[in-house]
Amino acid sequence: MTITTPAGFVASGHAAGIKPSGALDLALVATEDGRPVPMAATFTQNKAAAAPVQVSRAHLAANGGMGSAVIVSSGNANAATGTGGRADAARMCDVVAGRLGCRPEEVLVCSTGLIGYRLPMDVIEAGIPDLVATRGAGEEAAVRAATGILTTDSGRKEALYEGSGWTVAGMGKGAGMLAPDMATMLAILTTDAEVHHEALADLLRVAVRDTFNSMSVDGCTSTNDTVVLLASGRAGPVDPVDVVDGVTEVCASLAGQMAADAEGASKIAHVRVAGAASDGEAHRAARKVAESLLVKCSFNGGDPYWGRVVSELGSAGVAFDMDRVAVSYGGVTVCRDGVAADHDEEAVAAHMAGTVIDVRCELGLGDGTGVVTTVDLGHGYIDENRGTS
Amino acid sequence: MTITTPAGFVASGHAAGIKPSGALDLALVATEDGRPVPMAATFTQNKAAAAPVQVSRAHLAANGGMGSAVIVSSGNANAATGTGGRADAARMCDVVAGRLGCRPEEVLVCSTGLIGYRLPMDVIEAGIPDLVATRGAGEEAAVRAATGILTTDSGRKEALYEGSGWTVAGMGKGAGMLAPDMATMLAILTTDAEVHHEALADLLRVAVRDTFNSMSVDGCTSTNDTVVLLASGRAGPVDPVDVVDGVTEVCASLAGQMAADAEGASKIAHVRVAGAASDGEAHRAARKVAESLLVKCSFNGGDPYWGRVVSELGSAGVAFDMDRVAVSYGGVTVCRDGVAADHDEEAVAAHMAGTVIDVRCELGLGDGTGVVTTVDLGHGYIDENRGTS
Repeated sequence: MTITTPAGFVASGHAAGIKPSGALDLALVATEDGRPVPMAATFTQNKAAAAPVQVSRAHLAANGGMGSAVIVSSGNANAATGTGGRADAARMCDVVAGRLGCRPEEVLVCSTGLIGYRLPMDVIEAGIPDLVATRGAGEEAAVRAATGILTTDSGRKEALYEGSGWTVAGMGKGAGMLAPDMATMLAILTTDAEVHHEALADLLRVAVRDTFNSMSVDGCTSTNDTVVLLASGRAGPVDPVDVVDGVTEVCASLAGQMAADAEGASKIAHVRVAGAASDGEAHRAARKVAESLLVKCSFNGGDPYWGRVVSELGSAGVAFDMDRVAVSYGGVTVCRDGVAADHDEEAVAAHMAGTVIDVRCELGLGDGTGVVTTVDLGHGYIDENRGTS
Repeated sequence: MTITTPAGFVASGHAAGIKPSGALDLALVATEDGRPVPMAATFTQNKAAAAPVQVSRAHLAANGGMGSAVIVSSGNANAATGTGGRADAARMCDVVAGRLGCRPEEVLVCSTGLIGYRLPMDVIEAGIPDLVATRGAGEEAAVRAATGILTTDSGRKEALYEGSGWTVAGMGKGAGMLAPDMATMLAILTTDAEVHHEALADLLRVAVRDTFNSMSVDGCTSTNDTVVLLASGRAGPVDPVDVVDGVTEVCASLAGQMAADAEGASKIAHVRVAGAASDGEAHRAARKVAESLLVKCSFNGGDPYWGRVVSELGSAGVAFDMDRVAVSYGGVTVCRDGVAADHDEEAVAAHMAGTVIDVRCELGLGDGTGVVTTVDLGHGYIDENRGTS
């Protein structure tokens, strides 16, 4: 079990026929009794947000942070589908709510897959009764749910945090934006901790900022990204600080699994910026370096060309003094006070040849720190993304 | 002749020994008599601006927009070189000024090449006397100057605009940021039109905005980018509107030559956005699409996946209404009112298979228009950029 490990939740997965392969393509996570519990969610900031994101946002606003279920479909993003697509997303919630005995606005909906195609609503509507009927708290139900949300992922992505007498569980999909046809990042989390819905929204925002939002493979923002967290309260009150830790750990684990699953990538790189004017500026500078095509190419080639890193820092739109900057690879300083520093070239070469690259940039201006995790840019990325077929 | 076609200018090129190959690596453009004339320049916005940019900015501020010469060195960017590097750049101006008989602040300096290495000042100082001594207005001098600023360029980049009794000439280097070790974009322009130095600065800003700043290959901002324009006044007063046209045409020609020379690219794409809330928003949206890795990969594969274009428009940070957007490839509308439009798929496929891709996005919100030219992202880019050696 994973997503159903926290007390009070059931799950299921079903092959409705959205995917031509016949693989599982619907998933459900719901409260055991269908009654609403505190629910929080974060969504893509993309103004071209897909229909299910628009509908889920409206439902979350209407249900006052109290929800019963999430339905996920995979194989088609229901994005760029207009008013018809929004009606389809709403209809999915209606049908689930009718079967669970809750209100439609207590159900959120996520979809992931190709952009620009209407959902095959006939097979989805035909499949939902089976999806709901087969829900359960056992191992097989949890596995089928975690499988039903996948697209190009190489395998299930699940994480569990065990607190003292309570747990947080998560399941996710996403291969680091490296298979953009199915690029969406989705994560559904459950916990049995008792948390007020307003506190739940706050802590989810913090956890997502520090995990999923600190990861960037290609800087593209999906139309469908969604993270949902449900809290059954079955384990009773838990110190909110502990809940933040637990949710953050589960999000971090899922984010790491997504980065590791980035198709076409051969290396992961952690870009850390310290000494910035603020944490926000550090994060922005780290993201500019992490999203630079030139820097990502140099990771691919294992080339410690710090000049590119410094050039990106200088154009990140943050406070910057060239004469104070330092850069290190794998703990070896290669640039100090803005100029080349004598260093152990063999040690740097050995670090760059590995699969995890650690780049640290010190701006020498303040206390701001930030980190963004990315991957290298090689032929594999191109090959994955030059066509949809 | 080109850079020396406008009356009143001389040029030269010299092989000082910065480049191991022995190729020309110093270039000079100066007024015939060494006396200052109206001069304008635009520089990179990168806060990690290289030493020559810092020195040129200071000289332009000190000379009140009246300058005599520009010296360019190629093979080493003199970037990330600290106070020593700034002293080297200033020294280059001093030596040129001494030989020309002008003041050091009347000389600007540009360098292009690898970041993080001090210039070989011994060979540069030894070479400048020959560089200055061989200056002339003839064909060979112009060719040597246009050659001496090149790095990975496949050939000279020159442009000439012939007005009625006056001319604008330009020489440039840059292969569209596609060979980042030598990524800098430099352009030196001369005209014999009589223009006040303040008007010259204004019109250069307009011309650069509409040409070089509307081109993006990988979104990286070089530490050394510089455009300089000198106006001898020898042809007498010219209608300022005509001068803007002439300078813009020369800049556009040089920008086009740079894009066409982008190593590793197989296609050029013009991304046009109309119907935005403002021209600024249209430009920003066009740039977001043009710099998207996913969109650039789809250009490489000739895949008309408009879903990616819409997704980038939605995350460009501009006013956007998904239900009003339209996208066309080669004049064929593939998305209308935010959803897929029936279209001639063969016509689109034929357009995408060509070497120039035309993408038009209509936001349906206002009158703002903008265009950004880019190239595709294929294996060639990776191969050019994964190592410095």
